[in-house]
Amino acid sequence: MNRPHNDTFLRALLRQPTDYTPVWLMRQAGRYLPEYCETRKRAGSFLQLCKSPALACEVTLQPLARYDLDAAILFSDILTVPDAMGLGLYFSEGEGPRFERPLREEWAIRDLAVPDPYDHLRYVMDAVAEIRRALGNSVPLIGFAGSPFTLACYMVEGGSSSEFRQVKTMIYDRPDLMHRILSVTAEAVTKYLNAQIESGAQAVMLFDSWGGCLSAAAYQEFSLSYMRRILAGLVRERDGQRVPSIVFTKGGGLWLESIAESGCDAVGIDWTVDIGEARQRVGQHVALQGNLDPNVLFASPEAIVRESKAILDAFGPNDTGHVFNLGHGISQFTPPEHVAVLVDAVHEYSRCQRQKNSACQLLA
Amino acid sequence: MNRPHNDTFLRALLRQPTDYTPVWLMRQAGRYLPEYCETRKRAGSFLQLCKSPALACEVTLQPLARYDLDAAILFSDILTVPDAMGLGLYFSEGEGPRFERPLREEWAIRDLAVPDPYDHLRYVMDAVAEIRRALGNSVPLIGFAGSPFTLACYMVEGGSSSEFRQVKTMIYDRPDLMHRILSVTAEAVTKYLNAQIESGAQAVMLFDSWGGCLSAAAYQEFSLSYMRRILAGLVRERDGQRVPSIVFTKGGGLWLESIAESGCDAVGIDWTVDIGEARQRVGQHVALQGNLDPNVLFASPEAIVRESKAILDAFGPNDTGHVFNLGHGISQFTPPEHVAVLVDAVHEYSRCQRQKNSACQLLA
Repeated sequence: MNRPHNDTFLRALLRQPTDYTPVWLMRQAGRYLPEYCETRKRAGSFLQLCKSPALACEVTLQPLARYDLDAAILFSDILTVPDAMGLGLYFSEGEGPRFERPLREEWAIRDLAVPDPYDHLRYVMDAVAEIRRALGNSVPLIGFAGSPFTLACYMVEGGSSSEFRQVKTMIYDRPDLMHRILSVTAEAVTKYLNAQIESGAQAVMLFDSWGGCLSAAAYQEFSLSYMRRILAGLVRERDGQRVPSIVFTKGGGLWLESIAESGCDAVGIDWTVDIGEARQRVGQHVALQGNLDPNVLFASPEAIVRESKAILDAFGPNDTGHVFNLGHGISQFTPPEHVAVLVDAVHEYSRCQRQKNSACQLLA
Repeated sequence: MNRPHNDTFLRALLRQPTDYTPVWLMRQAGRYLPEYCETRKRAGSFLQLCKSPALACEVTLQPLARYDLDAAILFSDILTVPDAMGLGLYFSEGEGPRFERPLREEWAIRDLAVPDPYDHLRYVMDAVAEIRRALGNSVPLIGFAGSPFTLACYMVEGGSSSEFRQVKTMIYDRPDLMHRILSVTAEAVTKYLNAQIESGAQAVMLFDSWGGCLSAAAYQEFSLSYMRRILAGLVRERDGQRVPSIVFTKGGGLWLESIAESGCDAVGIDWTVDIGEARQRVGQHVALQGNLDPNVLFASPEAIVRESKAILDAFGPNDTGHVFNLGHGISQFTPPEHVAVLVDAVHEYSRCQRQKNSACQLLA
């Protein structure tokens, strides 16, 4: 388990100097790639794809074969954890993820238990190990999990939601029950991420997709505090290498200061935040990951280059600790050739910035 | 056209002292009220309800008959403006608003023209006048319009959207076309709001429902700058009374400082912002409107009282310039009796705060 040949991503997360700004894309192994759709068809379903270590490994590597990405991310789904907790995950066409047994009854919430990641989530650990073998010493592998609050949204609503009526009613009426769900889930996620690290993940990320739906006070109490608990329980070193952690609350731009103090190494930001202002606000102790609007990838190559340069300029050419990414997962409708334009533009322009080359501005 | 007997709302918008904190609710005339559903059924459709001054007046007054609200808001829809611009608004069951002729072609965008509000939007002006007559001198009437960017989202996408793919592709690829749409729409909205003021509206509000989907830079260029243009063109006084203006960008919490400098009298905020911090950030020159999570209304009366008191406390009992509201429109599933709990709690607790009564904390 040596340090990868290309460790730019890991160095940037730890705010060490890099030759250029590393880049990867949330949901980079996904439906915008025809080869992904082909493998998924072969798997039979999304869930079977997640549960087959060989196929999960295959799709994890697909974007790396096409693009000069600086990290791989485990192909999986955040809902594997509540599935392992017995809620019965399934995917219904056009409706997204659903649970057979959503958490509606007090007894079910009291009965929740932390699953052993090496038992019910063995297939994830096998995928991590297989991907690490396949990657060799090329680029680092990111492991991930959903935040307890985001998982609780699905567990209580029973699937996707836009209003979060049931979750919020529980928060305001029965905070004790919500804290019970979050507490068990936080412990489950801690063990799950530590097992991923043990199996070979070289960095980990917490996806808090729905924390942004909360009020300022409720975010602190019901989302951030549980992510803090997880971060405090993570294995921070493996084989003598630090394992950096990233926290991403979609729509959490108002709360960056407190996220930066949660114990993570890097804070993910969506495109509503100016990354230069974010840098000022979080100070020097964390790295930032982001933050291109995924919709820019629908525009022309010229626009893609212009907008990614604007982000690199806003972050500041003389600063360390930036991992370029989108501000949200890549859309299934993205033209694959536009991703190459983005990745190459980030590398080329940021390398030029590091060399303090005044001709950078002319690059297109 | 005398000043209303209850002018608490208008005074709060202008940051003048009030005996208590005024309250109204976005979408207060809506589907959560059985009497509204009955009138809508009688009208035949939502659009016919909007287009009948008598029925629009009827539903505008319904929540005021039930609750001790401090303002009425014109019953209408933000999409009446693009409808008057010739896009052909219709509502399809379960899908929300749609346009027969969305803006997809360059020629259609070049052909856009500003409608005369007294011609194609006569029914709105008639409704405003009729509502003012019906209100007598009880409470003030709020007029409103959608922000140019929010209207452009519907005009380009052809209906509701969650990703705004077509709007954003236009922003990044053909900003000239987007600016043309926004420019014509801003002029249309200015004339439309001035006609509402002329017809009797005593305050006006700009709803920027979708500005929060933009990047920090795009928000300034494509949303806020056009709202600023509208605010600069508004009639600011009518019958010797100032007509205050409110700007509300849903999800705009990151940009409050610049919204507060747009020329409005008050800034609407959603529940993701702590209202005490918002007060600090916008300074003393504007009022704030907000910001209870509408989902709190699904919880118990005790929780509703607790959460509304928390907002009043956070704003600061010794400060002026707060209009209590939800952070978004009221849900159609809200129990009507919970609204009474909220309205009464805001009045009772804020009145007690003003009297510096140390027993306020005991009120429940």
